[in-house]
Amino acid sequence: MFRAVEDMPVASRNQSPQGSLPLLLAVLRDRGPLPLAALGEYLGVSRSKVIQDVETLVRQGVVTRGGRAPSRGGRPSSLVGLAPDLYYVGVDIGATSLAVAVTNGYLDVIDFVEEESDIRTGPHAVLGRAVQLVGKVTSGLRHPRLLGAGVGVPGPVSFRDGRPDAPPLMPGWDGFRVRDVLAQRLSVPVTVDNDVNIMALGEMRKGVARGASNFMFIKVGTGIGCGIVVDGAIHRGANGCAGDIGHIRVGSSTAPCHCGRIGCLEAEFGGAALAQHAIRAAETGESPILAEWLREQGTLTAADVGRASAAGDQVSNALIRQGGQLIGQVLAGLVNFFNPSLVVFGGGLANLGHLLLAEIRSVTFNRSTPLATSDLSIIVGELGAQTGVVGAALCASEQFAAEIAMTPAPPPKEVEP
Amino acid sequence: MFRAVEDMPVASRNQSPQGSLPLLLAVLRDRGPLPLAALGEYLGVSRSKVIQDVETLVRQGVVTRGGRAPSRGGRPSSLVGLAPDLYYVGVDIGATSLAVAVTNGYLDVIDFVEEESDIRTGPHAVLGRAVQLVGKVTSGLRHPRLLGAGVGVPGPVSFRDGRPDAPPLMPGWDGFRVRDVLAQRLSVPVTVDNDVNIMALGEMRKGVARGASNFMFIKVGTGIGCGIVVDGAIHRGANGCAGDIGHIRVGSSTAPCHCGRIGCLEAEFGGAALAQHAIRAAETGESPILAEWLREQGTLTAADVGRASAAGDQVSNALIRQGGQLIGQVLAGLVNFFNPSLVVFGGGLANLGHLLLAEIRSVTFNRSTPLATSDLSIIVGELGAQTGVVGAALCASEQFAAEIAMTPAPPPKEVEP
Repeated sequence: MFRAVEDMPVASRNQSPQGSLPLLLAVLRDRGPLPLAALGEYLGVSRSKVIQDVETLVRQGVVTRGGRAPSRGGRPSSLVGLAPDLYYVGVDIGATSLAVAVTNGYLDVIDFVEEESDIRTGPHAVLGRAVQLVGKVTSGLRHPRLLGAGVGVPGPVSFRDGRPDAPPLMPGWDGFRVRDVLAQRLSVPVTVDNDVNIMALGEMRKGVARGASNFMFIKVGTGIGCGIVVDGAIHRGANGCAGDIGHIRVGSSTAPCHCGRIGCLEAEFGGAALAQHAIRAAETGESPILAEWLREQGTLTAADVGRASAAGDQVSNALIRQGGQLIGQVLAGLVNFFNPSLVVFGGGLANLGHLLLAEIRSVTFNRSTPLATSDLSIIVGELGAQTGVVGAALCASEQFAAEIAMTPAPPPKEVEP
Repeated sequence: MFRAVEDMPVASRNQSPQGSLPLLLAVLRDRGPLPLAALGEYLGVSRSKVIQDVETLVRQGVVTRGGRAPSRGGRPSSLVGLAPDLYYVGVDIGATSLAVAVTNGYLDVIDFVEEESDIRTGPHAVLGRAVQLVGKVTSGLRHPRLLGAGVGVPGPVSFRDGRPDAPPLMPGWDGFRVRDVLAQRLSVPVTVDNDVNIMALGEMRKGVARGASNFMFIKVGTGIGCGIVVDGAIHRGANGCAGDIGHIRVGSSTAPCHCGRIGCLEAEFGGAALAQHAIRAAETGESPILAEWLREQGTLTAADVGRASAAGDQVSNALIRQGGQLIGQVLAGLVNFFNPSLVVFGGGLANLGHLLLAEIRSVTFNRSTPLATSDLSIIVGELGAQTGVVGAALCASEQFAAEIAMTPAPPPKEVEP
């Protein structure tokens, strides 16, 4: 139903008189305000066609003309930009966190809030809180026009319906009408996708993967998942669960996984597993620093392992290295299979420091074929905690653009006789 | 450079007056001769546009009109078909075999020949023999018009140049101008791709994957490789080596691989590894039947293991089951990652019988997530030894269609005054 505008067949853009508008909106969103001539060049259409489209969007209040573009020698051209009162909402629902942002039409984050949250409290509690947070981040805006909201959830999604589809980590969410319920509560169109997919889109449009059209985004948070981008569009797979790499079995592991099987990557590493390993190392006294923190805090998290590692704790360093090796083993196989030029890491555990990334790189470059890795970069994303909400806002903007294309243009202003 | 016609953005088809011709040719190729009205429906264009395009292709001798289509109540419509003297050549160069076919415009195999061959004898010897075999399969045709040849080679290919790119199994072939040399020898346009990719295309267009647009084709021959189809087009990856799953490391294996590393899937299974396992079982006397055949033949092949298995040899059964388990382990991870609805097996070892497929299925369904396998079929292809040559001929037909779109139409016939 939804595809990135750049990836829509051009014909479908041109079927209706409004057919070229989504691309125009995408160019403005991604390139910023542009002189008419430059806009025409990006779109590959005539000046008269650009003027016609811009006028249509000005009438709808979506686009403004104003300001003076730097002259290129010809007649002066005014800048075309997105209306300053347009906003999108991005909601990133994680297993243990909830992040909400409002962005302007260019997807710049205007306000952002993140808090701890437990997905297991169910859709009513989590979505109710998300609606409150949307109110909070938009409260400072003067007369905002919210064009739509994008939502990421930590599990497989039936994209067409906007419902989670048999999500293993989300009790009570299976089949819940996330899209429809939020659309009603927020009074804007809503699009729902898997959290890792929206993070991949966020890094592709606004982050470190700008310009990449074939890459993998791997989130290492409570669980581990992968967003797969092929030719600029998310590859969802036959059941919408492509990228579910947290349940690939690693080595000879027999660790029981919450999914009911054994030896999954996620059962050995990821936020939940790492916290358990840390608690064990604290309880056995193997790591004095973790033992001390456990006494003080009553529990330990993956972030504590990162702090302990930074403080020189050998046990924590070993845990991170072991995790990096397991991820590297899985990634090496996927690199042979998919041959990406870029792998981007994000999620809470991407902050564990250089040790994790170094280990992942080492194993991947050692185990993949030399040709498959000859141009491969393995890096950490640059949007951090905002990756998901930016990607979600991007989804909302794509949906808005697609709907503009379906909306009949208002009649042209009548000229006084 | 090359994409399946169906996947070209529609705009690029329509940029020139000939722009809709590739799609018209693809529809005729894949659907057979059609009445004008049906052709227009498939293409989604007006009757007058279809007539115009058909006339253009009739003038070029590519399309014929004739015969009478079954009436649908309106005025009788003649059938549009491909000219009967059009042919394509498909060449499938394997590590140990060479197959050549000539097909008609509908990609039906008219003549086919396959023989043993050794890729290590180098490009001059192998391509020279391929040219001889093209002569052989086309010798029975009356006044054929060869429109092009497609070639598959068992290694990574720089698709743009038509040259092998650092192929591990093909000494002497790295960077060799396969496309240009064959185009000169055969006097037709030539397109070169990886053998597994062309096999995937063959099964997609003419075999068991008809109608599938997202699937994996796994060849288990001397080595093991995978063709990945995403939205109807081959996913080649950043370096053209996507699908190189034979060098994914399996379990705790430390078997040395010809690629220089250890524990690759291909080092444990595939035709070469299986033959070695069989020779070992014969030499130790573990398998009396294999020992007998080794004495008689001087060596053993993977096919002998299949024959011994069919004759009830327990050692051969165990070897096949172990291989199936290793492939299943790798496939389970890839199914979680890619979430295909269809996995097709081909190559020589796909003939080893039900045991191999049963084992692959068992491990894959056991180790992948239930959602990822809920609609998954794992089956053997139906084109057998002709999979590669049919896919290669398909590539040639796509290239021909793309070139038709670039060729200026001949002037319309002048009407006598």
